[in-house]
Amino acid sequence: MEASSLQRLIQCLGRLPGLGPRSGRRVALHLLKNPDRVLSPLIELLSYLQQAIVTCQICGCLGEEDPCAICADSNRDPHTLCVVADMADVWALERADCYHGHYHVLGGLLSGIQGIGPEALSYPQLLARCALGQIHEIIFALSATVEGQTTAHYVMHQLRAFPHIQLSTLARGVPLGGELDYLDEGTLSTALESRRSTNVSKLAG
Amino acid sequence: MEASSLQRLIQCLGRLPGLGPRSGRRVALHLLKNPDRVLSPLIELLSYLQQAIVTCQICGCLGEEDPCAICADSNRDPHTLCVVADMADVWALERADCYHGHYHVLGGLLSGIQGIGPEALSYPQLLARCALGQIHEIIFALSATVEGQTTAHYVMHQLRAFPHIQLSTLARGVPLGGELDYLDEGTLSTALESRRSTNVSKLAG
Repeated sequence: MEASSLQRLIQCLGRLPGLGPRSGRRVALHLLKNPDRVLSPLIELLSYLQQAIVTCQICGCLGEEDPCAICADSNRDPHTLCVVADMADVWALERADCYHGHYHVLGGLLSGIQGIGPEALSYPQLLARCALGQIHEIIFALSATVEGQTTAHYVMHQLRAFPHIQLSTLARGVPLGGELDYLDEGTLSTALESRRSTNVSKLAG
Repeated sequence: MEASSLQRLIQCLGRLPGLGPRSGRRVALHLLKNPDRVLSPLIELLSYLQQAIVTCQICGCLGEEDPCAICADSNRDPHTLCVVADMADVWALERADCYHGHYHVLGGLLSGIQGIGPEALSYPQLLARCALGQIHEIIFALSATVEGQTTAHYVMHQLRAFPHIQLSTLARGVPLGGELDYLDEGTLSTALESRRSTNVSKLAG
């Protein structure tokens, strides 16, 4: 019989993204059966971060410092901004280690279904950053979905007051390791349209 | 860039059963983005249970009371014991709401590979309970795996001093909703061997 607090913990865990009632029970049991090795460190980390976590006033990143480590890093290119929807996208790009400019976290994507309008996005802060005159290029790294593309279009439109800033989006095409057979028609036709010419003499060298 | 405490939280979450690095990040972000609605209640529950959780000295159940609610429930049949490996099995049987006796949680299954020997199991406590003379039947509800069957065999052998106690195991056969086509050979041959005769006259009625 699950006692009441235990049951509430299981419910609480089961509602986390990617978990369900079954995995909630499994995680709860794992935590309670390993009080010193797992539960204590987890409580400590959660309690610490509950106090310590802040949103960077410049870019909107979640972190333990404000301004965040990325905004404060003088080795990063101050002229390039990458606009992303969410903190998770910043982590994804940082793991790829292919981008060394600054970020701007919008905090979501426009969505009629979820009722997310422009007022939920941090694009005014983006305009304010642009007004400082240091930005030369803004890369829109938003999902290749209707919401992502609508958001990119909307924010780009707001940026029309800064015609000298170059706007770009991520390339669309065949993902690495992607087998043609399994790709959807949209990706295939975009990849065909945006095909790149190959220089045979370079291939030979 | 994931800051150090945040990174440790993600690692900690990613090592929970059923989660990985990706879902660890997802859960961490969900927690930190909802400090009041999700993070606070979770910390509170975990901290409370860290103090409150106890193992029932009688049956080995995890709960907030000792003896546990099941052992303390005078409406349950005191003559029947159900031997299970783990607390999760107690929850599964309680959800099925088909058993109204008491439990005995062994705390694991014998496993040569994982190095779990008889000393890790709470069978001495089971023998002590049997010695009190109240138990008429012991149902072994252990997994239908080599480890489960080895453990059942071992514990049953320890119970040879109590020949008046009836020992039983869960029936083996076709699970509800199981399609013959997808069943393994072992289950099929066990189900055939243990076939039940059907009374046509009863079917007609």
